[in-house]
Amino acid sequence: MFGLMQQHPLSIASLLMHAERHHGAQEIVSRRVEGDIHRTDYATLAARSRQLAKVVAALGVGIGGRVATLAWNGYRHMELYYAISGSGAILHTLNPRLHADQLSYIAGHAEDQLLFFDLSFLPLVEAVAERLETVRHFVLMTDREHMPASSPIPGLLCYEELVADQDDRYDWPQLDENLASSLCYTSGTTGHPKGVLYSHRSTVLHAFAGALPDALNCSARDVILPVVPMFHVNAWSLPYVACMVGAKMVYPGPGLDGKSLYELFEGEQVTMSAGVPTVWQGLLDYVDAGKHRFSTMKRTVIGGSACPPAMIRRFELDHGVHVLHAWGMTEMSPLGTVCSFRNKHLAQTAEQRLALQNKQGQAIYGVDMKIVDADGTELPWDDVSSGELLVRGPWIARGYYRDEGGDPLVDGWFPTGDMATIDADGYMHITDRAKDVIKSGGEWIGSIDLENIASAHPQVAMAACIAVRHPKWDERPLLIVVKKPGGELSREALLAFYRDKVPSWWIPDDVVFVDSIPLGATGKMQKIKLREQFRDYVLPTS
Amino acid sequence: MFGLMQQHPLSIASLLMHAERHHGAQEIVSRRVEGDIHRTDYATLAARSRQLAKVVAALGVGIGGRVATLAWNGYRHMELYYAISGSGAILHTLNPRLHADQLSYIAGHAEDQLLFFDLSFLPLVEAVAERLETVRHFVLMTDREHMPASSPIPGLLCYEELVADQDDRYDWPQLDENLASSLCYTSGTTGHPKGVLYSHRSTVLHAFAGALPDALNCSARDVILPVVPMFHVNAWSLPYVACMVGAKMVYPGPGLDGKSLYELFEGEQVTMSAGVPTVWQGLLDYVDAGKHRFSTMKRTVIGGSACPPAMIRRFELDHGVHVLHAWGMTEMSPLGTVCSFRNKHLAQTAEQRLALQNKQGQAIYGVDMKIVDADGTELPWDDVSSGELLVRGPWIARGYYRDEGGDPLVDGWFPTGDMATIDADGYMHITDRAKDVIKSGGEWIGSIDLENIASAHPQVAMAACIAVRHPKWDERPLLIVVKKPGGELSREALLAFYRDKVPSWWIPDDVVFVDSIPLGATGKMQKIKLREQFRDYVLPTS
Repeated sequence: MFGLMQQHPLSIASLLMHAERHHGAQEIVSRRVEGDIHRTDYATLAARSRQLAKVVAALGVGIGGRVATLAWNGYRHMELYYAISGSGAILHTLNPRLHADQLSYIAGHAEDQLLFFDLSFLPLVEAVAERLETVRHFVLMTDREHMPASSPIPGLLCYEELVADQDDRYDWPQLDENLASSLCYTSGTTGHPKGVLYSHRSTVLHAFAGALPDALNCSARDVILPVVPMFHVNAWSLPYVACMVGAKMVYPGPGLDGKSLYELFEGEQVTMSAGVPTVWQGLLDYVDAGKHRFSTMKRTVIGGSACPPAMIRRFELDHGVHVLHAWGMTEMSPLGTVCSFRNKHLAQTAEQRLALQNKQGQAIYGVDMKIVDADGTELPWDDVSSGELLVRGPWIARGYYRDEGGDPLVDGWFPTGDMATIDADGYMHITDRAKDVIKSGGEWIGSIDLENIASAHPQVAMAACIAVRHPKWDERPLLIVVKKPGGELSREALLAFYRDKVPSWWIPDDVVFVDSIPLGATGKMQKIKLREQFRDYVLPTS
Repeated sequence: MFGLMQQHPLSIASLLMHAERHHGAQEIVSRRVEGDIHRTDYATLAARSRQLAKVVAALGVGIGGRVATLAWNGYRHMELYYAISGSGAILHTLNPRLHADQLSYIAGHAEDQLLFFDLSFLPLVEAVAERLETVRHFVLMTDREHMPASSPIPGLLCYEELVADQDDRYDWPQLDENLASSLCYTSGTTGHPKGVLYSHRSTVLHAFAGALPDALNCSARDVILPVVPMFHVNAWSLPYVACMVGAKMVYPGPGLDGKSLYELFEGEQVTMSAGVPTVWQGLLDYVDAGKHRFSTMKRTVIGGSACPPAMIRRFELDHGVHVLHAWGMTEMSPLGTVCSFRNKHLAQTAEQRLALQNKQGQAIYGVDMKIVDADGTELPWDDVSSGELLVRGPWIARGYYRDEGGDPLVDGWFPTGDMATIDADGYMHITDRAKDVIKSGGEWIGSIDLENIASAHPQVAMAACIAVRHPKWDERPLLIVVKKPGGELSREALLAFYRDKVPSWWIPDDVVFVDSIPLGATGKMQKIKLREQFRDYVLPTS
């Protein structure tokens, strides 16, 4: 016997329609590539998205067609999110930090038919356009005034002109909720990048879970500035959550330096933000150097890679900004866990809570997780047993676009490639990427713990810890460090800094000071490159 | 092209599995019919729900079979919520405040196969058992010790014995998410009661929306005491939200008087509650009489009928308890709108916010609404135009059980029978039930406004306003009032109290003082009965 409830497919367009009808006057503020601050509202955004849906159709893209974007966080990118997915096409967000080779591989693999891109990426697109064989039309996301006088891109189109050519009389199609809505490639460190294909259903369910009080806790009272790029796993769902709850949105465009961000936080009275640790480092340094204060900012979500404890402490204690340490991945839409408090934690000391906040937190409803040993046997949630983390749920991938890499699931669970412990309360702690773990004398040493300690040293700007071959112990840790500008720090002083913080056999065997550590397209340290670079490094203990 | 996300049906069992795995040690506290305070946790609740699912199957109920409950709010009722729906059967919550005639009609119409009931309802069930022809087994929700020595109910079963006879090795079945999960009859004032049949999908989506920060705002930090009965539209989803977010739950059982509730609020450190205005009146009177304070209570949801402004003011200003004025109906699972604030309201004065809080608030994502005139033409959202409120969304009924009453929808919209205005921000205000509106000289007078003013008078305990026939104006308002015990109040003084609060032609033509106003099974004033009683009343203005 079936229920007698109305049937409404979960759809991305329904989010926008809700925002238009129920939060039409709420603001969306963007720092534009053109240099100015732009203001619009949900009613206007919805009307322009309908115009844009007609543009997409007029350019020959139908249901299931792929449309690529190469853009910063801004209202035009948000319009594209809704216009493309809402009309039944598939939004493919390209990461502009990738190499031209990777970009052209990915766009070709996805068979993108259109490419919408920001003015900043004109040189990049001009350089690569010829190799984007499937792309039939290139659209520069600006007005006529900012269009280049000439361009090697044949028939380059102007976004604002295309929009202006269409009226906004358009009915969003009723789509099967399991249809694909968007596509994002993982920055795989080995093999070809693989595409994760989200559906309308997964996107809406993920937004519901993401907006919950114990997840990102978003409401119509919030002013949300997503620092995490819209080309990076849909900005952790914030452009969708925004419409669901009617929050004021503030988009930073290309201005991701500390000064630009801080001015926007204060000028627009931002209450909530989200981003990766590397960006926050720049912001905190700017704020502290100028002795500035956050006057409206209440909390920030930090994820993408493990947040150093020193950063959590700095936000919480120095600035009164609550840190929500989160974990997820492209294959998870991306939200999996968030370290929010339970009622018992509210009675604890700040130090106890800070200790808890080093963990990536509890699974949000919809996500289930487990840790397993090398044989696949489930490990206990005892805060000590470390195993590979597996997840399942309705916004977690069951495979990759065009079946790349085959079936990733193990008995219905997605193996994350992360090593983790889980405590009795269900708070998960990433101890390492499975491939980054250091195996010393048959025991595992977590590289993240060692990096976090180094990062807490006042003279350290960035630290990576990798395994180096050792004749006796198989592998031993090598610490690679970027000093702060003008910082004085010796190998011996840094190693002494580890004393009493970890078991003595965890202390790295050596330290190498470098000028920089390679970062990937999503801001994560590329330890695979470091491992190549130091492949033949001879430790003093060898 | 379909997305490549995992397929997991939305299911009620998944809520319980999440709570068990991720919030297993969180407490569930119940005041039992047996008289004591009982404590359990989600892990135990989940295990016992599995045992109970086996009981339901052993008693011969399969997927789609209807199982009735007649019970207060408590852990055993929560176990039944999950055991029955989770195993694929349909939970049918009966309202013990209904007449025996209505109960037997409803149970027969639903073809209930089992009836689980609390000890308090033994006399009621004994009186009606013979007429419950479809019910094959009666289960008393208590232990052996509290079973009656004898009963006219043939083969009366003991809940705790049945549970103890089963082990907890049970896998929740994978169910189509559109299967029916639960059934609740509307307390229809005309015609037969009609059954609303919820699905797993509608229940989970409704719980997602209900837990959002701008709706009920529920988290693992909350201690939630649902005063609203679990036999009344699933206690507004709180037993489902509880598992979704892992909140501590406190169930009041039959103790709904001010003293019992207050002791539980304080003793268990309740942070959030929900109920109808009539219950809050008793609680506030008890608290004020004893000069007590709420020491942990942060907010309460008030719905079921319009909350008198005086009550909102009392909660907010005298007790620092934030009121979330909400609106919905059985056909809406029930949540439709909640009056939560936007960022601009935070800067307003308390008085401005109190004025806003008289409205039932903004639609939560998933619910769309509109107001229409008598011709069905949509009316503007100008805070003035009043029309019938229509709604649509995935947790709103498209029809009734066994097609009772035919197709209720109008172009896909469900007509609520409520009259409302909507302001430019989308805040909705119920002005009346369509059938309660007073039509005077071709103009509408809202009976709720007139009742709210009377309720704000210090000597008034309860007030109803109904239309009485008038030779010149067709209808004119008659106010029916219950005075406070020992209160001194004249007709003239009460009518004078309306001066400058409403247009002069809205002021009631007469006042009748009565000892009590009839309340329906869900605590609402039964104005239909008053209209019958005063059908031939002659107004002094006639």
